[in-house]
Amino acid sequence: MKTETHGKLMQVSVATLATALFKRGLRGQTIQDVRPVKPKGRNMVGPAFTLRYIPAREDLNQLAAFRNPDHPQRKAVETCPPGSVLIMDSRKDPRAASAGDILVTRLQMRGVAGVVTDGGFRDAMRIGELEIPAYHNRPSSPTNLTLHQAIELEGPIGCGDVGVFPGDILVGDDDSVIVIPQHLADEVADEAVEMTAYEDFVVEEVRAGKSITGLYPPTNDASLAAFELWRKANGR
Amino acid sequence: MKTETHGKLMQVSVATLATALFKRGLRGQTIQDVRPVKPKGRNMVGPAFTLRYIPAREDLNQLAAFRNPDHPQRKAVETCPPGSVLIMDSRKDPRAASAGDILVTRLQMRGVAGVVTDGGFRDAMRIGELEIPAYHNRPSSPTNLTLHQAIELEGPIGCGDVGVFPGDILVGDDDSVIVIPQHLADEVADEAVEMTAYEDFVVEEVRAGKSITGLYPPTNDASLAAFELWRKANGR
Amino acid sequence: MKTETHGKLMQVSVATLATALFKRGLRGQTIQDVRPVKPKGRNMVGPAFTLRYIPAREDLNQLAAFRNPDHPQRKAVETCPPGSVLIMDSRKDPRAASAGDILVTRLQMRGVAGVVTDGGFRDAMRIGELEIPAYHNRPSSPTNLTLHQAIELEGPIGCGDVGVFPGDILVGDDDSVIVIPQHLADEVADEAVEMTAYEDFVVEEVRAGKSITGLYPPTNDASLAAFELWRKANGR
Amino acid sequence: MKTETHGKLMQVSVATLATALFKRGLRGQTIQDVRPVKPKGRNMVGPAFTLRYIPAREDLNQLAAFRNPDHPQRKAVETCPPGSVLIMDSRKDPRAASAGDILVTRLQMRGVAGVVTDGGFRDAMRIGELEIPAYHNRPSSPTNLTLHQAIELEGPIGCGDVGVFPGDILVGDDDSVIVIPQHLADEVADEAVEMTAYEDFVVEEVRAGKSITGLYPPTNDASLAAFELWRKANGR
Amino acid sequence: MKTETHGKLMQVSVATLATALFKRGLRGQTIQDVRPVKPKGRNMVGPAFTLRYIPAREDLNQLAAFRNPDHPQRKAVETCPPGSVLIMDSRKDPRAASAGDILVTRLQMRGVAGVVTDGGFRDAMRIGELEIPAYHNRPSSPTNLTLHQAIELEGPIGCGDVGVFPGDILVGDDDSVIVIPQHLADEVADEAVEMTAYEDFVVEEVRAGKSITGLYPPTNDASLAAFELWRKANGR
Amino acid sequence: MKTETHGKLMQVSVATLATALFKRGLRGQTIQDVRPVKPKGRNMVGPAFTLRYIPAREDLNQLAAFRNPDHPQRKAVETCPPGSVLIMDSRKDPRAASAGDILVTRLQMRGVAGVVTDGGFRDAMRIGELEIPAYHNRPSSPTNLTLHQAIELEGPIGCGDVGVFPGDILVGDDDSVIVIPQHLADEVADEAVEMTAYEDFVVEEVRAGKSITGLYPPTNDASLAAFELWRKANGR
Repeated sequence: MKTETHGKLMQVSVATLATALFKRGLRGQTIQDVRPVKPKGRNMVGPAFTLRYIPAREDLNQLAAFRNPDHPQRKAVETCPPGSVLIMDSRKDPRAASAGDILVTRLQMRGVAGVVTDGGFRDAMRIGELEIPAYHNRPSSPTNLTLHQAIELEGPIGCGDVGVFPGDILVGDDDSVIVIPQHLADEVADEAVEMTAYEDFVVEEVRAGKSITGLYPPTNDASLAAFELWRKANGR
Repeated sequence: MKTETHGKLMQVSVATLATALFKRGLRGQTIQDVRPVKPKGRNMVGPAFTLRYIPAREDLNQLAAFRNPDHPQRKAVETCPPGSVLIMDSRKDPRAASAGDILVTRLQMRGVAGVVTDGGFRDAMRIGELEIPAYHNRPSSPTNLTLHQAIELEGPIGCGDVGVFPGDILVGDDDSVIVIPQHLADEVADEAVEMTAYEDFVVEEVRAGKSITGLYPPTNDASLAAFELWRKANGR
Repeated sequence: MKTETHGKLMQVSVATLATALFKRGLRGQTIQDVRPVKPKGRNMVGPAFTLRYIPAREDLNQLAAFRNPDHPQRKAVETCPPGSVLIMDSRKDPRAASAGDILVTRLQMRGVAGVVTDGGFRDAMRIGELEIPAYHNRPSSPTNLTLHQAIELEGPIGCGDVGVFPGDILVGDDDSVIVIPQHLADEVADEAVEMTAYEDFVVEEVRAGKSITGLYPPTNDASLAAFELWRKANGR
Repeated sequence: MKTETHGKLMQVSVATLATALFKRGLRGQTIQDVRPVKPKGRNMVGPAFTLRYIPAREDLNQLAAFRNPDHPQRKAVETCPPGSVLIMDSRKDPRAASAGDILVTRLQMRGVAGVVTDGGFRDAMRIGELEIPAYHNRPSSPTNLTLHQAIELEGPIGCGDVGVFPGDILVGDDDSVIVIPQHLADEVADEAVEMTAYEDFVVEEVRAGKSITGLYPPTNDASLAAFELWRKANGR
Repeated sequence: MKTETHGKLMQVSVATLATALFKRGLRGQTIQDVRPVKPKGRNMVGPAFTLRYIPAREDLNQLAAFRNPDHPQRKAVETCPPGSVLIMDSRKDPRAASAGDILVTRLQMRGVAGVVTDGGFRDAMRIGELEIPAYHNRPSSPTNLTLHQAIELEGPIGCGDVGVFPGDILVGDDDSVIVIPQHLADEVADEAVEMTAYEDFVVEEVRAGKSITGLYPPTNDASLAAFELWRKANGR
Repeated sequence: MKTETHGKLMQVSVATLATALFKRGLRGQTIQDVRPVKPKGRNMVGPAFTLRYIPAREDLNQLAAFRNPDHPQRKAVETCPPGSVLIMDSRKDPRAASAGDILVTRLQMRGVAGVVTDGGFRDAMRIGELEIPAYHNRPSSPTNLTLHQAIELEGPIGCGDVGVFPGDILVGDDDSVIVIPQHLADEVADEAVEMTAYEDFVVEEVRAGKSITGLYPPTNDASLAAFELWRKANGR
């Protein structure tokens, strides 16, 4: 990913990115039924660092399991690189937590860019107050040991019905999170910035009373000409 | 619908309307699992203007489909009458969007009274900031083409397990949306205003320490007499 | 329950309590998929007073049913002891309401500590504005008669996949509600207070840049020694 | 219930009974998502004897619980009257069993008319081989203690979204089970026998090539006249 | 559709057709969660004749509705062309029936090729005994009036998450039903016959002990050469 | 696993094994909502050989993917050891197939003991006719590429809400499949054989008219004494 791509992805919506991927034949990259613990009004962007859970077997998931320094969940929290996003495959099961506020605070302190699960967070209200963006299905108070066994770091996973490979670029906004295959990140970011410029122009036009016909999408020359003028006027 | 009915429906809750319809044998008119994108603190009222989606077939739902000026979704946005509510049958599937913020902004500019889907909106955070009331199941970033093909305007539809006929009166509050058959709107509005007066009286009484026994519902004369005094005192 | 237990339970999170119960082999005491109507920023604590619904049969659930002073829902509202929590088994069905704002206002006036359902409340926005904590699955406008028949007070029930016996201690925070068997309340409260002290210490350490390794859980003596100092310094 | 009613209910379908109840305003008496363990080709008929489960708490549901002669599940099996149907409220949760083949064999030996749960049976294949009709959602091998605590006999319950009172008349065929309020059993049985006669006549007519128009339902005199002749000819 | 296409489609599996459509970018044409009422051991093939239901409003769906000769369900049964398949959009709701045995018998008598719903049939056991192939989600005894209002014939519908246009070619086998866009039926039938020949050859080879490597799919010349010999030997 | 353990596990039911594991604190080892494609009347027993799917990304899952000899699904079919059971984590998603009849035929030819998925099989009717036991959720015709990407062999997986480690012992009967941790297989098999002897004795007693009280479980000496006699008489 080029360095300027990160900045571009900070400025575009997941909806716009979903359309850019749709054009490339990728129709299912938006993580389903996962939302911000608390909307932040800014994007989350970073490469995926993955953690996978399987259903917990009771004998392997007593509290003592956390005393093992190699417990994959705890190791994930201490090794996820700054700037990356820790994303967890909780098999869409929010009946027990994927993590809690202490671990998410540690992630924030370590400079991790965000945290995502298709399960739920415990201490969700406190997590919502942190700076770090966090996404889940719903609050879930029981410890992850109850139903989830952390099993693997940095393998391919599923999250909210999307396949995620380590290094895929994750972008979250106040609506949801999308998974951009690593090799497409630069071109999709470029295209999304262009699309966003046009959409911002369209919103202005619509707010000024214009019809969307011919404007969105642009099917007449007048729309495109007006857009060119707008770009110059607005430095976009 | 009589002109004063609109004003009456602006002042009553969906819960009260649900009970008024229940008395008439209509038990299932509240749209299920649909909520405000952002609560507005005021009602949405208007006749239904319907749009129906069917599951999308890939070859018919490429981005170019939107270039067709007769695409039913786009046509809905430009033809839904001011004061009406655009309501969409998305087959209770929020995995792809029913519409996004540009279209909803256009609806607002055109004076449409509200927009409802049993799917989800993309750019939901922006839609929540608009004036126009919008109701959905949850935010959904993928373009509607991914899963939904807009197929028909102004036919009868299902929305959130309720049958909706064009012209039915929709009322939404901060909890949910209800569908009032057109021919019942006037009488139901009248009755709901009466019920609301009594409920407001009851709330005051309960806040003053009264038991609900005999009061809600009124099974003794004292309750009804006190209510008559309250009505006079409060001009209700 | 000892009198000081109430105060202790006001200060600990449901997540911490869930772990304390997990240690005792109770893995499923957190009510699933139930959330605050509006987060209160303080806990709800009290013994369970139960109300059970069964699916409604139409002939037994006309509006006139509420005129019966022995209707179990209305009786629950007038007899639930101050300080107790009214908890309802709505069979996880939020398609019709479990109660509305008038009844919940009455509960508040009577000094009831909170109200919980695994269904939904009507007039949910108004209930959210009350002082009394209320927990449900989602707003639901139709009267309970539509789908729920109130059938029994003070029997054992299920709520959100948890078995609840009258007198069990319910604790709710801004995430969820947990059910503590009555005979465990004192010891679990004690332990949770201890756990919370350690967790608060850990959060401070993590915010100061410490790794969680060895600290959470404490697997080296340094962590425990630092904690002892912190306790003295903070009077915990 | 009159003695001849049982015989009548043995000869009519659940579908016909559902329509007879629908005429009386009872729209929801068919137990949802429950099917024969193995179709028997004959009806199950009998008054309901109810057993209610709540979610299991681990400490109360160790194997030793079954050593208690008053364990409600075991007591149900030994006290359900011959000719009655044991019906269980398993909260629509088939993840653990409601009962197994030994208990169902005992029910058969005792002359019980059938057994119904909205959960699942263990040893389902063996239960299917028994004479006694059994209905469930799907096979489920884990012992009921895993998730279900038997809590009460002979109270009102819910089963598959239907309210069931002890003594209600249950009728099952190869499709599903319906709950007839006790006071309606005689008249509904009479009406269903009449309806069945007409339906059998219609099937013969349709097999002979007749259109359903005017015949089903009968809207012309010819249909009714032909039916009268058919009744005489067939002794119905 | 060419006349020989029907015969070809009678001989290929839905799985093979799904792959042929997948090659053309159509990934979602198999109707989900719908199965034969009783497997027939032969295919159902025919163009779609559509019937759409919306959620029923009680006042419009009393039993008298069936006395109307233009009731869309009854009209569908009398007008669906011989050789076509009647397919119903029941919004994936099997809680009330889509049709029963009398109507399905009439469809059979009229030479209709099959009947499909994403809801359920009443009298399902009897429908299973008929010659005509029928597909549904599960048996459902309540009359359709309970939850479904028949609203439209021969419009585009959704069925089991697939968009269906009148005239699309439906093929059902003992597993499921697939929807082939009309303009693709001939070429997909041709390709599926070819694929089936190869698959039959592969099964023989595998049964003779061959590995699938290089054989399925054929990635070496030997496999293709052996297949050519097999075709000649077997007249395929 | 001792060699005689296999034979023991062939003779006991999944229900009995579930209880034996329940006694050891393992409450969730039965795979949920997975059933035989066709009941075989005999058990499936073998160590787990695992295959994991993640949600498919379109560009990586074109038909050409199968030409890769290292495609994990195809490799699984050629490398799963004779006597083992191939078990697949399909994330409980039966909307696309986990495998089809050609691959399952190859597994049978190679001496594999069975095949399990928490998704669905295509060509399910043909798979049901094979000798090899196969378990799934429901038939599913679309190729796995549509929604599933085969990603890993022989790692830990989840299947039907159970954690499965390679080498765990799988036992399936006509009801369902259970996962026995490898180190418990011998002792659980021994115990289950003992339990089965007692259960067989109980069934005989119950069929002879005995009450279950005191007999199941045995709480009086008479039951145990009678059992000892029965064992001698029956050589158990």
